[in-house]
Amino acid sequence: MVTRLALLGAGRIGKVHAKAIAEDKRAKLVAVVDAMTAAAQAIADAAGCPVSTIDAVEADADIDAVIICTPTNTHADLIERFARAGKAIFCEKPIDLDVGRAKACLEVVRQTGAKAMLGFNRRFDPHFRAVRKAIDDGAVGTVEMVSITSRDPGPPPAEYIKVSGGIFRDMTIHDFDMARFLLGEEVVRVMATGSVLVDKKIGELGDYDSASLILTTASGRQCIISNSRRASYGYDQRIEVHGSLGSVSAENQRPVSIEIANKDGYTRPPLHDFFMTRYTAAYAAEISAFIDGLEKGTALSPSAEDGLIALQLADAAIRSDSSGMAVSVAN
Amino acid sequence: MVTRLALLGAGRIGKVHAKAIAEDKRAKLVAVVDAMTAAAQAIADAAGCPVSTIDAVEADADIDAVIICTPTNTHADLIERFARAGKAIFCEKPIDLDVGRAKACLEVVRQTGAKAMLGFNRRFDPHFRAVRKAIDDGAVGTVEMVSITSRDPGPPPAEYIKVSGGIFRDMTIHDFDMARFLLGEEVVRVMATGSVLVDKKIGELGDYDSASLILTTASGRQCIISNSRRASYGYDQRIEVHGSLGSVSAENQRPVSIEIANKDGYTRPPLHDFFMTRYTAAYAAEISAFIDGLEKGTALSPSAEDGLIALQLADAAIRSDSSGMAVSVAN
Amino acid sequence: MVTRLALLGAGRIGKVHAKAIAEDKRAKLVAVVDAMTAAAQAIADAAGCPVSTIDAVEADADIDAVIICTPTNTHADLIERFARAGKAIFCEKPIDLDVGRAKACLEVVRQTGAKAMLGFNRRFDPHFRAVRKAIDDGAVGTVEMVSITSRDPGPPPAEYIKVSGGIFRDMTIHDFDMARFLLGEEVVRVMATGSVLVDKKIGELGDYDSASLILTTASGRQCIISNSRRASYGYDQRIEVHGSLGSVSAENQRPVSIEIANKDGYTRPPLHDFFMTRYTAAYAAEISAFIDGLEKGTALSPSAEDGLIALQLADAAIRSDSSGMAVSVAN
Amino acid sequence: MVTRLALLGAGRIGKVHAKAIAEDKRAKLVAVVDAMTAAAQAIADAAGCPVSTIDAVEADADIDAVIICTPTNTHADLIERFARAGKAIFCEKPIDLDVGRAKACLEVVRQTGAKAMLGFNRRFDPHFRAVRKAIDDGAVGTVEMVSITSRDPGPPPAEYIKVSGGIFRDMTIHDFDMARFLLGEEVVRVMATGSVLVDKKIGELGDYDSASLILTTASGRQCIISNSRRASYGYDQRIEVHGSLGSVSAENQRPVSIEIANKDGYTRPPLHDFFMTRYTAAYAAEISAFIDGLEKGTALSPSAEDGLIALQLADAAIRSDSSGMAVSVAN
Repeated sequence: MVTRLALLGAGRIGKVHAKAIAEDKRAKLVAVVDAMTAAAQAIADAAGCPVSTIDAVEADADIDAVIICTPTNTHADLIERFARAGKAIFCEKPIDLDVGRAKACLEVVRQTGAKAMLGFNRRFDPHFRAVRKAIDDGAVGTVEMVSITSRDPGPPPAEYIKVSGGIFRDMTIHDFDMARFLLGEEVVRVMATGSVLVDKKIGELGDYDSASLILTTASGRQCIISNSRRASYGYDQRIEVHGSLGSVSAENQRPVSIEIANKDGYTRPPLHDFFMTRYTAAYAAEISAFIDGLEKGTALSPSAEDGLIALQLADAAIRSDSSGMAVSVAN
Repeated sequence: MVTRLALLGAGRIGKVHAKAIAEDKRAKLVAVVDAMTAAAQAIADAAGCPVSTIDAVEADADIDAVIICTPTNTHADLIERFARAGKAIFCEKPIDLDVGRAKACLEVVRQTGAKAMLGFNRRFDPHFRAVRKAIDDGAVGTVEMVSITSRDPGPPPAEYIKVSGGIFRDMTIHDFDMARFLLGEEVVRVMATGSVLVDKKIGELGDYDSASLILTTASGRQCIISNSRRASYGYDQRIEVHGSLGSVSAENQRPVSIEIANKDGYTRPPLHDFFMTRYTAAYAAEISAFIDGLEKGTALSPSAEDGLIALQLADAAIRSDSSGMAVSVAN
Repeated sequence: MVTRLALLGAGRIGKVHAKAIAEDKRAKLVAVVDAMTAAAQAIADAAGCPVSTIDAVEADADIDAVIICTPTNTHADLIERFARAGKAIFCEKPIDLDVGRAKACLEVVRQTGAKAMLGFNRRFDPHFRAVRKAIDDGAVGTVEMVSITSRDPGPPPAEYIKVSGGIFRDMTIHDFDMARFLLGEEVVRVMATGSVLVDKKIGELGDYDSASLILTTASGRQCIISNSRRASYGYDQRIEVHGSLGSVSAENQRPVSIEIANKDGYTRPPLHDFFMTRYTAAYAAEISAFIDGLEKGTALSPSAEDGLIALQLADAAIRSDSSGMAVSVAN
Repeated sequence: MVTRLALLGAGRIGKVHAKAIAEDKRAKLVAVVDAMTAAAQAIADAAGCPVSTIDAVEADADIDAVIICTPTNTHADLIERFARAGKAIFCEKPIDLDVGRAKACLEVVRQTGAKAMLGFNRRFDPHFRAVRKAIDDGAVGTVEMVSITSRDPGPPPAEYIKVSGGIFRDMTIHDFDMARFLLGEEVVRVMATGSVLVDKKIGELGDYDSASLILTTASGRQCIISNSRRASYGYDQRIEVHGSLGSVSAENQRPVSIEIANKDGYTRPPLHDFFMTRYTAAYAAEISAFIDGLEKGTALSPSAEDGLIALQLADAAIRSDSSGMAVSVAN
């Protein structure tokens, strides 16, 4: 049986997901919704399906699931609406920038028993998955310390910063989820500090562009996170997990792997400079995992709850930064 | 205007090309031909086009070009036939295992003025292209020496060896083309030696499984090639170009780039173990280049003549190996 | 003129310094002192000089400088004594485990105007020096974030832990100094957390074996430090400095740099497993810098004050860990 | 018992060996000989021994062995003379540039039963030794193919070229010995070709600056060698051994191992640019092995015969290059 999907939101990431659906024989895109009709039409044409509306998708009993790629401030409403409509839901992160709103949304998901998956795409990166597999295979023994380096090629525009929820909720949130993916225990304590080192305008908007964090689990496992909104050499995404028997790390990814040697030394080209090319495989794999979970009836992961927990860690980081104190996180 | 293509041969590589065509908006697969009807049908279904016959494709004035992925011994005949039919031609290497036959075929291509491109896919590997670009950009100065390491994960079955034309015509032929792609001058002299080190059966069939070669150009530029039918760690494909100002090299490709460190050291996973996963991007790019050339009316490269020259170098290698002498190659 | 040196302490590190002196034509070892006469005699014999006593060295007007390699609890006394005796002083870190005692000692150094250098050997590692030079040369622009990974191959014996002063004063102290060496600004704030993950006995002795820290400077530059008393793959010592124009990092050092590729992947041997082989070049270079400074009359660096500041940062880390608060550091 | 050594030749390499002897407790330098008295005196002073003459060393029954670092054209005479005088001999490569002369010299060594070792220092490089050890440990299975890349930072002066014996006898000779060290079988066949690509003056002197070779053993194992007198990025010295179970390779050595990442990519500094810094450890280890062999009475390796065989391979390469034929080598 083919899973029938509707795409809500025909922007950059919507297009990526539509392509992943097109290449998956187990699924079919049957409707595209976007206020920008032209964008919706382009994707619909490529998929051979009609442009539709939220209402129509909601009412269509033949649609199994929705892929929510709309702006962040619509996520919680749409999740609730389609949970009540009995559709399975894939939603881009975050559920909401407000923990309270996210909790309320999650409550609806629980009550309705809706299947919901959150788009923490990095869990599906083949290299990071291989790190996790090495841990699961016992290659590093008991996990002790995780290091995450996550740097963007350059700062986003001021318009984006304004609605982003701040560096901890917007950027570090991926690393919070990655930390949880790798630590093997829940984080119970957050220490965080942010600085404005890259772009004064970011500071004027009340945000940071550089941040360092220490997360701790109940048994004392530690995770350090290093974030920057600038990396001249590309999209810097590294993880390292240190355990009782050894370490496992994922190197950065490069579009071309050549090396030029001359009198100045040995030079390799810069990294990918865009998250969508860096994580191409991850985006495809997460949609595939969503379809797979629906087809087999297995639990969807990362879940909406994973989205809430990452958001709570972001809030803890904000409080730690402003108070200068380690902040405990209830689980 | 969309280029209308017929696929001749629905095997492994035919499927790869069909996928590349499907993802290219400038082209459309309009017919699939194969004696194995089921294979042809599967590709045709995915492309939304009919299964057809050689005769029908030849007669169809609406078909612009053919993609020839049939067995080697049919290549020359099909090239001639479709050259005469006025179709553009993309053909998998080699034109033929016999230089005389290849020359005759090339003569038909010339006389008919047919557009023909030969499937030396490695020229389209993004990493090897970046090596070539570095040379063209002057990064290594004047090219002096090229080193090509090319090792298969394991030996092919005896059935394949029997019809392969021998290691120099079957395996080294890619390296001859790569040498020409990088040396910047034609090869005028070949020294070659082969051994049976991997699999005695290969020797019993009169072939080698290991070979070393030295190619020389008129100005004295040198290229060394190292071939083996076995590499336990995967598909080993490296090139290095050394010039007056420095060197440029392309590293091996890995499906996952993690590293595990423990008491035994630092270990990275093996390389790709299959040429089709190693050269996925190259296959897509060569079909794209074919379509691009047809659309823009530019010269197709590598040409059928490039195919002939590589074959002549293979023949020279065979003679050098058997005679123990350097063999001159006329150009 | 040859600098005449006395070695106080003929243990492991004393032997290393004696060798460095022997290879430096500008200096000569003229006396060796140690309660263990046999150890002192062995070094003295190799150097062709007599075994001596503290009193005799103090009284000998022909001795220009002392190299203090005695147990930590004697450092401050010996520094004061030889400062008053008008000798130049090279002393292994730390001055003392107690900040108050270290301050008093430093006061004597100031009052006497004694030349004193502290043995933070890592500043002299050629790779770390090259990192610093790259910063000084402007290669990374303005420094923004420093990452230091420092892991021992295995935990020290309980006897050592007992007198070590704890992980922050014993192990992290090197990293505090390295942070200051690289940040380009004084650290004003410390966040630290420690865990017992490696060896319960270390916890029973009131110490940690794993620690994470965030240091901040006045302008918001950040440094993260990751410490562990265990690394199965060897002595893990890495630094990375991220700035406005790029990053510079120092890789780990290996005794042999070969790589074996087989069906399990690509394996390089483990790192150095002992700090004395890892930092061989650094130990020689620091003694050379000491002799150089004495010969040329230039300032000795790292100074005794650098030793005090690192100790103050360690104390701040201890307070941060116990209070869960960021601790400010006066400068 | 301490081995008493005389150093013949107080040039660059003589100084290196004198330092190695000084650091070895089992040996003592007791005489230094050189026509340049000042050079001899400097080494003698550092060693605390007298300057002497060839005659006096020959006549001195207390001298156990000689280290011959004089010009190449004196090697054979000195080896014969000291073989007859009953001294053990360490001689820099080559024995002589003429195979006939080398054979005659070797005959004297055999007749006198003299202990003689030839200075193929690269066998003692810790990385290359580790490659050999990996082979001996079975890590790559049966050796099949060896690749040696050996490039000098820049061409030597014309004066040196004139007396060098040509690239195959002067430069490739090290690679011939390395090939034999790694192949596990004697070379029976040589194919070689040289070019002038770097420096026309080298061509005018009848020599090459670039060369490629294929060596073959009786069972068909192959070795390719790539030589160039120029490498802008430093002293390029790599080996790779490919076998039935996998490969082992030795990477290039760098004086500093840092990496700078910026908008232009990731850059590591150039390699060592001088053979004496690249092979520092190897020089010390070969003298240590010589002393060790004398002390324990074990066979010295590489032997004078190893020197002869490498020279015969060089002659075969010269004949192969000039004739364009593979040249068989008798063993």
